Amino acid sequence: MAARVDAGAGLVPPDRYAELDTPVALVELDVLQRNLGGMAERARRAGVRLRPHVKTHKSTWIARLQIEGGARGVTVAKLGEAEVMADAGIDDILVAFPMVGRAKLERLRRLAERVNVIVALDDLDVALGLGEVGRGLARPLEVYVDVDSGLHRTGRAPGAASAALALEVAKIPGLRVRGLMTHAGQSYGARGAAVERVAVDEARALADTAAALADGGLSELELSAGSTPTAFFCEAAKAAVPSLTEVRPGTYAFNDVNQVTIGVAEEADCALTILATVVGRQATDRMIVDAGSKTLGGEAGVGPGHGRVKGDPTVQIERLSEEHGWCRVPPGSSWKAGDRLEIIPNHVCLVPNLVGEMVGVRGGRAERAISVEARGMNR
Amino acid sequence: MAARVDAGAGLVPPDRYAELDTPVALVELDVLQRNLGGMAERARRAGVRLRPHVKTHKSTWIARLQIEGGARGVTVAKLGEAEVMADAGIDDILVAFPMVGRAKLERLRRLAERVNVIVALDDLDVALGLGEVGRGLARPLEVYVDVDSGLHRTGRAPGAASAALALEVAKIPGLRVRGLMTHAGQSYGARGAAVERVAVDEARALADTAAALADGGLSELELSAGSTPTAFFCEAAKAAVPSLTEVRPGTYAFNDVNQVTIGVAEEADCALTILATVVGRQATDRMIVDAGSKTLGGEAGVGPGHGRVKGDPTVQIERLSEEHGWCRVPPGSSWKAGDRLEIIPNHVCLVPNLVGEMVGVRGGRAERAISVEARGMNR
Repeated sequence: MAARVDAGAGLVPPDRYAELDTPVALVELDVLQRNLGGMAERARRAGVRLRPHVKTHKSTWIARLQIEGGARGVTVAKLGEAEVMADAGIDDILVAFPMVGRAKLERLRRLAERVNVIVALDDLDVALGLGEVGRGLARPLEVYVDVDSGLHRTGRAPGAASAALALEVAKIPGLRVRGLMTHAGQSYGARGAAVERVAVDEARALADTAAALADGGLSELELSAGSTPTAFFCEAAKAAVPSLTEVRPGTYAFNDVNQVTIGVAEEADCALTILATVVGRQATDRMIVDAGSKTLGGEAGVGPGHGRVKGDPTVQIERLSEEHGWCRVPPGSSWKAGDRLEIIPNHVCLVPNLVGEMVGVRGGRAERAISVEARGMNR
Repeated sequence: MAARVDAGAGLVPPDRYAELDTPVALVELDVLQRNLGGMAERARRAGVRLRPHVKTHKSTWIARLQIEGGARGVTVAKLGEAEVMADAGIDDILVAFPMVGRAKLERLRRLAERVNVIVALDDLDVALGLGEVGRGLARPLEVYVDVDSGLHRTGRAPGAASAALALEVAKIPGLRVRGLMTHAGQSYGARGAAVERVAVDEARALADTAAALADGGLSELELSAGSTPTAFFCEAAKAAVPSLTEVRPGTYAFNDVNQVTIGVAEEADCALTILATVVGRQATDRMIVDAGSKTLGGEAGVGPGHGRVKGDPTVQIERLSEEHGWCRVPPGSSWKAGDRLEIIPNHVCLVPNLVGEMVGVRGGRAERAISVEARGMNR
């Protein structure tokens, strides 16, 4: 029998999740497992490794499901997330964020002594700091050189600029250039078939850089591409760019309204919802629910609105305050105080970090609590 | 000597907060105390009670500072916040959110058995549920009837509509109508002197409703107005509407870029900043810092940008990803990887809930850790 689920209001029998106090994050376990299995299978067919980004769920239980399903290690955004994953026995971790500063480097050294760590970088000064860490380890610290494939966030331009940096980094004692990585976050501006072109261009940015490096003696590099929309097209990317070796999607574990808007998922593929309660029908065309930006996240989505109500497209979540969701409803609709609804978030990666605990459900029954052990690990 | 401060990377000597790992929320204790004292003094001069909203800081230590400074009880958005405050010995709590559903009402009953609770409502069905709770208590449950003074979120229209609801509520056994409340969130659309007009209108919405109630036998009501911008004008509101009895500001404890943009605070009044590190100067006009929406909150502010860099107005935080702050910088500026800066958030109420712990600093020294005990208490 499943463990009892504590959802903040005391223990609740697991077979009656309809009685859970709200707002509460529900994870449909069948959908989660289908999402994890689908992406793992897609990567296998493409012949690329899957290194999922765990910033989405920040849960060691889900990370282990990903590893058991064939993922090769995980990706994290911050060292604090890496420490949590290492504590849970995950021993192959890419920190896809520049590591800067004495406190951070000391923590990185301790982490690299106990698990396999790869660190992203895009700056020679940052690489020099990492070299000091690497020289204190039993073997060189492995790094991915970050290439800007079009998002213009971190990374240098593909080709000559990134290759020049990689060659300088390769000279630093204590470091080993293990590969090249990029994050094609610009895929969030594409829709449908256009995402495939972003995925191919993303892989090509890596391959172009690798080609510029071959003369410098750097070869057999991992070429690691990363974003959920483009990972759905990893087979096309690998077909166009055979040297691609790895993909790093995160959001695919749950999916969300953004992925549905982009066209890579459907509502039925969204595993995480917020179960919320209508707390008032303040006007014929307006009601308030008890989930706001402190539950759903306050970022604008790639489409309109602040989430989607499962099963009722006539409800529009027009605005969020911290604890209130402002919904426009058809004047004739029957929604009233006390009714419950499930909201699919715009950007699901914000939600586990806010709620701290999720309830895994299957077939209408609460099956398990899912802890968000890396909640708030922003360092 | 001050206790050592744990900021996630292990214990750090309190007199060297410049070595804290980043991103980390710093609270300038002198500014915090000046903000708390200033609002308390303003309320005293006006002759209204101060019942601060603790959703901003979610910290029992700061709540106790507010009580010791003369606040009469606190306001919370959610019952989970109330439970945390009650556990810390705060015994007069307004829950400014409709309480709906069996689990919530059972928790409310338990809370009302141990501290003085007032609950907001704007719906007769919701009031009937509260009546059941009240009838199980030794004395009636006190409620504030929520009046919509122009935000159009919760509450009914001022005057006849709200008065009719209040009179119906007053008939419910187990309830006592203790007062009327409103939240003039529309003050966030006002600037400078126009905020004073919103403050007066907010108080008037309460007084108009109270006038419509006097014939029904409801008198000696608390009239409770609430928003940080309007609370700065509580003296003008009280002068125009002498029956105003209470104000419920929250953000004033820290202030933020929104308050500066509105014109009720200056940069020097902003007590909370995020100490962040530049992790790369990716282009002559662009750099990335290690604080994104999972630290600063992802909501758009009432003005442009995603926060303000203390002491350098030339840096514009143009965009946030979850862990990256995208900054536009003048091409000739010297910012480089490893440099540190302090960011004032747009909407500070999102930040403690994200970071979980803050570091109180004074005179350049870290003095104490400030726990955010009500983090994630969204139920």
